[in-house]
Amino acid sequence: MASISVPNPAPSPTEDAESIRKAVQGWGTDENALIEILGHRTAAQRAEIAVAYEGLYDETLLDRLHSELSGDFRSALMLWTMDPAARDAKLANEALKKKKKGELRHIWVLVEVACASSPDHLVAVRKAYRAAYASSLEEDVASCSLFGDPLRRFLVRLVSSYRYGGGGVDGELAIAEAAELHDAVVGRGQALHGDDVVRIVGTRSKAQLAVTLERYRQEHGKGIDEVLDGRRGDQLAAVLKAALWCLTSPEKHFAEVIRTSILGLGTDEEMLTRGIVSRAEVDMEKVKEEYKVRYNTTVTADVRGDTSGYYMNTLLTLVGPEK
Amino acid sequence: MASISVPNPAPSPTEDAESIRKAVQGWGTDENALIEILGHRTAAQRAEIAVAYEGLYDETLLDRLHSELSGDFRSALMLWTMDPAARDAKLANEALKKKKKGELRHIWVLVEVACASSPDHLVAVRKAYRAAYASSLEEDVASCSLFGDPLRRFLVRLVSSYRYGGGGVDGELAIAEAAELHDAVVGRGQALHGDDVVRIVGTRSKAQLAVTLERYRQEHGKGIDEVLDGRRGDQLAAVLKAALWCLTSPEKHFAEVIRTSILGLGTDEEMLTRGIVSRAEVDMEKVKEEYKVRYNTTVTADVRGDTSGYYMNTLLTLVGPEK
Repeated sequence: MASISVPNPAPSPTEDAESIRKAVQGWGTDENALIEILGHRTAAQRAEIAVAYEGLYDETLLDRLHSELSGDFRSALMLWTMDPAARDAKLANEALKKKKKGELRHIWVLVEVACASSPDHLVAVRKAYRAAYASSLEEDVASCSLFGDPLRRFLVRLVSSYRYGGGGVDGELAIAEAAELHDAVVGRGQALHGDDVVRIVGTRSKAQLAVTLERYRQEHGKGIDEVLDGRRGDQLAAVLKAALWCLTSPEKHFAEVIRTSILGLGTDEEMLTRGIVSRAEVDMEKVKEEYKVRYNTTVTADVRGDTSGYYMNTLLTLVGPEK
Repeated sequence: MASISVPNPAPSPTEDAESIRKAVQGWGTDENALIEILGHRTAAQRAEIAVAYEGLYDETLLDRLHSELSGDFRSALMLWTMDPAARDAKLANEALKKKKKGELRHIWVLVEVACASSPDHLVAVRKAYRAAYASSLEEDVASCSLFGDPLRRFLVRLVSSYRYGGGGVDGELAIAEAAELHDAVVGRGQALHGDDVVRIVGTRSKAQLAVTLERYRQEHGKGIDEVLDGRRGDQLAAVLKAALWCLTSPEKHFAEVIRTSILGLGTDEEMLTRGIVSRAEVDMEKVKEEYKVRYNTTVTADVRGDTSGYYMNTLLTLVGPEK
């Protein structure tokens, strides 16, 4: 469930565009007005506002936000204002350009883009990626020399997938593939690197995978995520766990993303922004519940503790009230 | 260039639907009228006719053709009448259900669907596949036990691709990748099976691959297709050649498809129909030219020699006159 709140009735896109213009015109900027408007509109409404704004003032809304704002606040409000598919294309492209793109926190971005939304959304992301970067997403992942195989092969498969989106499942297949996954994850060293894991996790529908993982849990008394957690230092295991979570219970993954960005020395604002902006319109209410249960604190409390100013206001607006 | 001819102005979809109804109503069927109408309409027009037909007569056009016609004629006219993306989804699904799906002629179907049309068309095919078969195309390729790796991995990559569709190319990349391909194809045994071949052919844009292959030809005095032809008995080499042809000069591949269907004991009608129906609206004029140059005969002469009746008439209508 989405965490943002939208006034009903909302002002027309033209009214919103005019209010935004007032907030950015002349000396100084009314940052709170920008948050108040954009932070309380759906993706479809924001898209209409951007069209209205460009029509009225002959400059794009994103260009204006870029020149008017700065720092983490600018990044957060611009990412939020973008079309979600273009946003994911941009996040994936930035992750692929990092010097340390081999690190788990950057690989997470690719996994999220590939697995945490609908198959049709991924197609839209790939389309946006081709339009923006003169290459394809899978091409850039495949030619990234920092990923070794089989991790690279796994990531290419994930970003290339267009999974069946229906709810039908095959119970016998789930039993067989739960066993195949088990053989792979309990084996030592290379065993996890088998093609079967890549194939199963890379191609099966979310509904099918959910049944397979449930079967796994029944059969072995614990979830495959716990077993994968036990393979410390095995990067493929960590990526596999993230993929399975994004595919079948994304709130678990994004609770971990937000918490990871908060913990440790300094805050990872990029990761924090991404986690909140990506999910505010999708399942942030579930992320907040998961966060409470798992970390014994709230997203709101952690955001308040680690951020400030307009940046904090933006994130809190998107996170919405705690229950 | 397309080989079909369309009357200008064409009758309205409703008029065409009514004429088709007359042709299939009562005792006997006016097969020639069906060929005359459907064989001279574009995909967009055929789609409109199908909608008009269903609206007027409360049965789908394809169902009626199925119950009214038979044999190779029925297959050809129905495949032609279908939406091209749904047709490719059906062809791929049938190829994957064959007992001998490991044979090159069945693998060709998957390569054609993946490589011989635009990247956006492949996305449409994958969407149609999911809608029709409750699984994804790449899922069914990946779980097909008759393909061993690395062939399976290559095919999965091909059917999952969404290549950059622009014309921009990177000359230095072409030089580097032409060399990588050369190392792979002249190496013995396993060398061809390297991941680089899969990556390059599976992800690069058509424009980029064309420059890479041209570079290869300049550097080595002959095309990579000729080198691959020299690797007799190597199935991956044969599939790789088909993929490169479909990506950069599909008329060569489809001339070979049609010729192969004609040669040998008996005609392979399925292959012949597929070759002609798939390309009649795309590049059949180029296929016909290529056919003349390479085989010293014409598509028309070979179709006349190996087929008869309404089936022949359908194919010849789609092939159009020889020049």
